[in-house]
Amino acid sequence: MSEQIRIDKCISLLNTSLMSETPSHKTTLRATLHRQLDPRSWAKPGLSPINLMIIASIVAAVILTIAETEPTLRALPGFSLLITISDQIFALVFTAELIARFWSIGENPEFRGISGRLKYLIRPSTLIDIAALSPYYLTMGSDGNFMLRLFRFLRILTLAKLGRYSEAMHVLSQALHRRRYELLISLAFACVLLLISATFLFLLEGELQPDAFGSIPRALWWSVATLTTVGYGDVYPLTALGKVFGGLTALTGIGVIAMPTGIIAAAFSDAFQERLNKQPPPQ
Amino acid sequence: MSEQIRIDKCISLLNTSLMSETPSHKTTLRATLHRQLDPRSWAKPGLSPINLMIIASIVAAVILTIAETEPTLRALPGFSLLITISDQIFALVFTAELIARFWSIGENPEFRGISGRLKYLIRPSTLIDIAALSPYYLTMGSDGNFMLRLFRFLRILTLAKLGRYSEAMHVLSQALHRRRYELLISLAFACVLLLISATFLFLLEGELQPDAFGSIPRALWWSVATLTTVGYGDVYPLTALGKVFGGLTALTGIGVIAMPTGIIAAAFSDAFQERLNKQPPPQ
Amino acid sequence: MSEQIRIDKCISLLNTSLMSETPSHKTTLRATLHRQLDPRSWAKPGLSPINLMIIASIVAAVILTIAETEPTLRALPGFSLLITISDQIFALVFTAELIARFWSIGENPEFRGISGRLKYLIRPSTLIDIAALSPYYLTMGSDGNFMLRLFRFLRILTLAKLGRYSEAMHVLSQALHRRRYELLISLAFACVLLLISATFLFLLEGELQPDAFGSIPRALWWSVATLTTVGYGDVYPLTALGKVFGGLTALTGIGVIAMPTGIIAAAFSDAFQERLNKQPPPQ
Amino acid sequence: MSEQIRIDKCISLLNTSLMSETPSHKTTLRATLHRQLDPRSWAKPGLSPINLMIIASIVAAVILTIAETEPTLRALPGFSLLITISDQIFALVFTAELIARFWSIGENPEFRGISGRLKYLIRPSTLIDIAALSPYYLTMGSDGNFMLRLFRFLRILTLAKLGRYSEAMHVLSQALHRRRYELLISLAFACVLLLISATFLFLLEGELQPDAFGSIPRALWWSVATLTTVGYGDVYPLTALGKVFGGLTALTGIGVIAMPTGIIAAAFSDAFQERLNKQPPPQ
Repeated sequence: MSEQIRIDKCISLLNTSLMSETPSHKTTLRATLHRQLDPRSWAKPGLSPINLMIIASIVAAVILTIAETEPTLRALPGFSLLITISDQIFALVFTAELIARFWSIGENPEFRGISGRLKYLIRPSTLIDIAALSPYYLTMGSDGNFMLRLFRFLRILTLAKLGRYSEAMHVLSQALHRRRYELLISLAFACVLLLISATFLFLLEGELQPDAFGSIPRALWWSVATLTTVGYGDVYPLTALGKVFGGLTALTGIGVIAMPTGIIAAAFSDAFQERLNKQPPPQ
Repeated sequence: MSEQIRIDKCISLLNTSLMSETPSHKTTLRATLHRQLDPRSWAKPGLSPINLMIIASIVAAVILTIAETEPTLRALPGFSLLITISDQIFALVFTAELIARFWSIGENPEFRGISGRLKYLIRPSTLIDIAALSPYYLTMGSDGNFMLRLFRFLRILTLAKLGRYSEAMHVLSQALHRRRYELLISLAFACVLLLISATFLFLLEGELQPDAFGSIPRALWWSVATLTTVGYGDVYPLTALGKVFGGLTALTGIGVIAMPTGIIAAAFSDAFQERLNKQPPPQ
Repeated sequence: MSEQIRIDKCISLLNTSLMSETPSHKTTLRATLHRQLDPRSWAKPGLSPINLMIIASIVAAVILTIAETEPTLRALPGFSLLITISDQIFALVFTAELIARFWSIGENPEFRGISGRLKYLIRPSTLIDIAALSPYYLTMGSDGNFMLRLFRFLRILTLAKLGRYSEAMHVLSQALHRRRYELLISLAFACVLLLISATFLFLLEGELQPDAFGSIPRALWWSVATLTTVGYGDVYPLTALGKVFGGLTALTGIGVIAMPTGIIAAAFSDAFQERLNKQPPPQ
Repeated sequence: MSEQIRIDKCISLLNTSLMSETPSHKTTLRATLHRQLDPRSWAKPGLSPINLMIIASIVAAVILTIAETEPTLRALPGFSLLITISDQIFALVFTAELIARFWSIGENPEFRGISGRLKYLIRPSTLIDIAALSPYYLTMGSDGNFMLRLFRFLRILTLAKLGRYSEAMHVLSQALHRRRYELLISLAFACVLLLISATFLFLLEGELQPDAFGSIPRALWWSVATLTTVGYGDVYPLTALGKVFGGLTALTGIGVIAMPTGIIAAAFSDAFQERLNKQPPPQ
């Protein structure tokens, strides 16, 4: 018996040093559920079967919510029934998930007991889960009320759950966070260029095309479409001088795209390199 | 004589260490053919003359297949004859290539004998070769059948053969594969942004422009054109608030392009550096 | 007492080695003001409360200046009063800022005394501050004069003050400056491509569409829209050959965007790495 | 005297080790001219005054050639005279430059004597110089002949001279050359995507919009505009399925831009790093 405790202690110590967290290796239902639901407790690469199933459910729920807004689909016979049934299934799945998470989180020492559960309940990700689930109960049964239908779009928020599932996401968001000042500067740079080009076009074409360039806010619609290289083509300069400034704006747009791309590329390159260097060299 | 064998052994050993494969230096027809057809057995830089000729044939066959669909070209006198003749030439060339590959692959110890040939036959690249060749025989002689003509588009698949010809391709695809999670996250990020912007535009402009923004799937057409900075300009927001959100979407589009570009740039930079470091330093 | 001086000396020495500048730790009003106004004297991370307030004022002033040009907003009752009052508040705030900067800069040994103040007064950033402030006094009271209204657009220049507030900006601008030749080459490369594509389209479509491609300067409008991938769609080639060259131009546009992006990404990557290497390794 | 020779030898040795070339320090007219004209013999940073003047002349000549094609400018009184006079001045300047280069190149041991001059004469850059100069003599005096006017566009080639003026260019072109296989693969990848999307749109929208998607070559015009994110908006899918594939094509367009950008960024990053490492560390 004491032998077993000694081995357990060893494994636990090893785990602590490796993952800075103690995933349980117990075989109770709650422990198994915790390993399945918490991505950081899942020892194998990739996602656990239950988490994969939940992601698939979220994607399916989002696609159905989108399809629901299309009148030609709503006019199809049986589509309404499909929505009602799938809504009830998704409500069941996501409610079960929430309860399972709430119960199994007790395996994590941080959230043990009643105070731990309350702490878990007020975490932003739990609150988003509940907010994403609530429309299923609030809109159940009702069909035509527009405001309630609007409420159901909150289900798109369930996608935010995906954010919990990946390690790579952590590297990316950390790299972006570390270069947040540089990215803000490139955004400020883009805003200044937007203003300058909108002001010039307002001065040059404001008289000729009052609807498109009659004020700086109106000219900004053209500026943003040009500097981001979207270029709808609903408005564009007509005079020679306006076209010269328009062309210069389009050329500057390359810089507006190149600056953040360069910062992000450099940030990711450094982050990947750092991660590689952290791994101890083979001896 | 034994001197010659000793030198041959030396060269062979050197080759093994350099390319982790033993290209034969025999002078039989089959060995020569193998060296010409298998890019990894070709010792000199670049591609062998036969492989270059095959690539040229594939490109020519693809261009002719494309040209065939154009009614103004089909109306030209002699064009039909050109197609018939070139189809027969290409059928001959690609059949000869397939047979030559099947025969000469025996030089590779991995595919020696009947079982080796069967193993070679069921490789994906061989199956694509056969699939790309089959329409030449299936459509031969027939001219007006639309479904058979459709079948002939499979010839575009012959381009997939090009994938076999390059070492650089391996470095690129490996670098992309290593960052597949990061790339998937940037795709998911783009999808979430697509959904958010489509939902906003649906809410803001759905009443005013039911054809363009009357449902989220319809609004997605505008969203994808804006976030990818394509900007056809067939649909765009008309209200002030719609334009504000449209402009924000266009600005976010920079991030949608910058994220994968940054990941890919960082991945390639690491891959190139790693390859450089692998080469032993000169002493 | 001598103990206190010893500690102060220590802190001062530490500061010198850390920031290569000696921020004063005196508690006079002028010293406090200097620490609040000069970003490099602010020991804590981020910006000082007063500088944050000034940035917020600049952004608010710029937004109001933009809004002022919109006729629908000018037609709103009370908007004119809002502008008049906010103009007076901004004039007060920015004048107070200028005087406070002028007084507190004496804490910096470089700008001490009358000659130091004169030296501070003729710095470009101070001149921009004064130029940005002057329209508030020149346009005060007048409302309808177009030329004076034009003058007020100079307030957009107040945004240039933002440039003073960030360390990250220094790294970015230095990295771009170090690669100025490479960036100029990619600009020259873009210009040559613009000329070539404009000349080809002028030759191919000049007869058919004289308004769009009747001269090289006219064709340049299409070229710049295509090579920067803006693509308004107001003009585009109509003939088959024109479309072939147009498509090639669009493909070359990828290179026109990729070149500066690549240079900027490489420049930033090197700059970030260099900064990391400068920090002494922990021992 | 022998002291002077010793110092000269020292300087010369130093130069050899620094620039791997021996610029002459003689004070004859020919030597001075050579230092002014050959960018690699110019010891100071930047370009020599004469080379700067020549670049300005080339840019001015190109701008005038472009302006000449614009009918509204040609209609201006005095414009014809301006062109005639400036053409004669440019002919003089570029002829003088060519002769000066031909004479002064003798300072370079590689091109000394008659055989050296012949070697210089048949270099591609010299031939381009001559080809760029010839239209000035061929079109002199004639005004209305269209074919001769066409010939004058060759003057745009004088821009190619710019290529000789920069060291940074060498680093960039070498970096691109080293990654030519990777860049070719990304081009091939773009071509395959172009074909696939064009074929799908031809199949999906060919019946509905025969002018835009009636054949694969016609559909390619839409494909190239979408994949390069130009998006003119002259043609776009109208059916739901066509829009789904169109949207996927636009999303793939991000990859088409990201691939070469990533390769170029990685290539430049490596090239800049390598150059940095070549410089000996300070001791």
